[in-house]
Amino acid sequence: MANAVSPLAVPLPPLPPLAGVRLSAAAAGIRYQGRTDVVMIEVAKGSSVAGVFTANKCPGAPIDWCRTALKGGKARMLVVNAGNANVFTGKAGRDACAATAGAAAQLADCPPKQVFVASTGVIGEVLPHDKLIAVLPALQASLAADNWEAAARGIMTTDTFPKAATREAAIGGTTVRIAGIAKGSGMIAPDMATMLCFVFTDAKIPADALQAMLKKGVDASFNCTTVDSDTSTSDTVLLVATGQATHPRIPAAETKAARNRMLAGFAKALNDVLLDLALQVTGDGEGAQKRVRIDVTGAVNARSAKKIAMAVANSPLVKTAIAGEDANWGRIVMAVGKSGEPADRDKLSIGVGGVWMARDGAVIPGYDETPVVAHMRGKEVGIAIDIGLGKGSATAWTCDLTHGYIDINGSYRS
Amino acid sequence: MANAVSPLAVPLPPLPPLAGVRLSAAAAGIRYQGRTDVVMIEVAKGSSVAGVFTANKCPGAPIDWCRTALKGGKARMLVVNAGNANVFTGKAGRDACAATAGAAAQLADCPPKQVFVASTGVIGEVLPHDKLIAVLPALQASLAADNWEAAARGIMTTDTFPKAATREAAIGGTTVRIAGIAKGSGMIAPDMATMLCFVFTDAKIPADALQAMLKKGVDASFNCTTVDSDTSTSDTVLLVATGQATHPRIPAAETKAARNRMLAGFAKALNDVLLDLALQVTGDGEGAQKRVRIDVTGAVNARSAKKIAMAVANSPLVKTAIAGEDANWGRIVMAVGKSGEPADRDKLSIGVGGVWMARDGAVIPGYDETPVVAHMRGKEVGIAIDIGLGKGSATAWTCDLTHGYIDINGSYRS
Repeated sequence: MANAVSPLAVPLPPLPPLAGVRLSAAAAGIRYQGRTDVVMIEVAKGSSVAGVFTANKCPGAPIDWCRTALKGGKARMLVVNAGNANVFTGKAGRDACAATAGAAAQLADCPPKQVFVASTGVIGEVLPHDKLIAVLPALQASLAADNWEAAARGIMTTDTFPKAATREAAIGGTTVRIAGIAKGSGMIAPDMATMLCFVFTDAKIPADALQAMLKKGVDASFNCTTVDSDTSTSDTVLLVATGQATHPRIPAAETKAARNRMLAGFAKALNDVLLDLALQVTGDGEGAQKRVRIDVTGAVNARSAKKIAMAVANSPLVKTAIAGEDANWGRIVMAVGKSGEPADRDKLSIGVGGVWMARDGAVIPGYDETPVVAHMRGKEVGIAIDIGLGKGSATAWTCDLTHGYIDINGSYRS
Repeated sequence: MANAVSPLAVPLPPLPPLAGVRLSAAAAGIRYQGRTDVVMIEVAKGSSVAGVFTANKCPGAPIDWCRTALKGGKARMLVVNAGNANVFTGKAGRDACAATAGAAAQLADCPPKQVFVASTGVIGEVLPHDKLIAVLPALQASLAADNWEAAARGIMTTDTFPKAATREAAIGGTTVRIAGIAKGSGMIAPDMATMLCFVFTDAKIPADALQAMLKKGVDASFNCTTVDSDTSTSDTVLLVATGQATHPRIPAAETKAARNRMLAGFAKALNDVLLDLALQVTGDGEGAQKRVRIDVTGAVNARSAKKIAMAVANSPLVKTAIAGEDANWGRIVMAVGKSGEPADRDKLSIGVGGVWMARDGAVIPGYDETPVVAHMRGKEVGIAIDIGLGKGSATAWTCDLTHGYIDINGSYRS
């Protein structure tokens, strides 16, 4: 599984300590040898938490556990393993979650429902949770505020680079920080919240406000990306607020306008972190050589625009054409049409790399192909689609479909 | 574009003359050199016709032409070209259809609306219809009843083998024949009627009865197959009844029960022809090395079962696993879950090659992997999914996703 690092990889940003968060990673040998595969993240007592999970109807046992735990709105510890997804493992899977959370809760001296577990890797094999539980004491002993990179690496599966993002925002004049890590490379599709993503802030924000902002941010980031149209059974985004920053108190939920005003800057920074991480996941799509941004305008409404953008982003014919550096706008027309959304062939315009190639139902005679060809050779490909019917717009991100995807997925379990 | 012949290729069946049908093929040099690329099919005066077309919202100009022509219910001539799809070509595309049909109608001495045109190939390039019209007289001169193979070959694009099927049926004690040809390899997806498929019978059946049977047959065949989830802009199935057979008269539409009784055998044979052709198209899916049959049972209803079957058939992760001969039932669970249809992880069963591997939400301990491994090495892979909720069932067909698909589609236009 030593895949070459994605050409779209970005270096980890500097990740200074975030008040109330300590991290560690260890090698439990659950599936991988010679690398870390279990990550512990301890957050300050009283931290509030929000979560968004996969829409897949056959979710893993950890998703069930987290959904229940989330009702309490409080978090004290996260335990994450890579190599085994603990999905479709029946009672053994539920037992593994309960045993892991119970052991971690004892170490953290908190109720089990303040422990959140997440697993990623192969589906359908029983998680050897004894191995996982065996490393928990060592994980706790090595918790440190500067272990962000170790945590980002410890949750990787087919990822070719670790993923993290951080931003600052002001709440009532006080600077707070947001930092998050993510993993994900395949089984990445709409209706989801990526494979695994953990975001932290030192702000003191109630769980209901966190949840509202997280849902909005995920809709505008992870849920606008796709690698292969396959929605994972394990997608999890958790957002934890440790409340260590000393900003003015967030107004209660009843004074919604005041609350929103105070959190506007924070929400924007959060959205930036989520989009940054989502684009890193897209840039590490299995076999990806190019990232593709699809801007749809002129649809009958925003929902329709998003559906069209995702139909283009999920089209194997569009994605293989991009892999072949072929600005094959005919396939884009096909994908717009197959979305089933209102579209009038004779009002449709298609552009690539800032050059309109087709307009009003036909190719633009003598359009300049030179800049388009040069654009297709780059690592970032931009597609513009104007439907010509209304004012709905949306953006989606994906990657190209290459031999690498087949290589990785034709032999994942062997 | 010299792709190796699909390992799922079947030899052309014997195709004896069918009363009222004459065919020919010629090389017009529209895109390909050194091969035939235009096919003419003349049918007896008074032949009735039915048609089913793509659901893509950006259809090609020939689709618009055929939809209008179909209102007359009569056909005298079909003109089909390969290499250029005449899609997204604006007024030039409409003009090309009208000019081609006009020229063919003059030769056939019929109204232009009894000429059906179809085009397949690259999208967005103006069809040089002068080249096409130039070969029409030669095509007419070479019309012959035994030219089925030439016609099947003349409509191929990325197809690696010609596709045809034939059956006999009895109507009122008289034997009638059904014979059809098809092409299609990529851009094959649900909601469609394959790329191009032309079916003929010597029976004398009114257009409305033909249309009803065709729609039903296509729903149970082509619309249950997918190669790459991409719905073509050109999908066309035409069914022509030449009325040359001397069976008892089909009862009028008003006596529906009597009509259905009389046509039951014919409808079954028609369905067989359509399914045969649809499976040949799936077996020539771009890059296909294996054909996959997905049987879903126990869904809440038939519609739900079909949606689940198609979600599995369209999953790149399932298809690459099959290419890698990996019976990765975890990915099948994922695809069932992402379909969005009612499913209960803990009631789900998954089998491959006749062996149940997972049941009631977990792997079956110690199931025998040996026959499964052997089955995965074969050319035909069978997947069984029992949802465990109701009595809805459906079957879908697809092929595996291999390097060949990337090779073909990363360089289609170059």
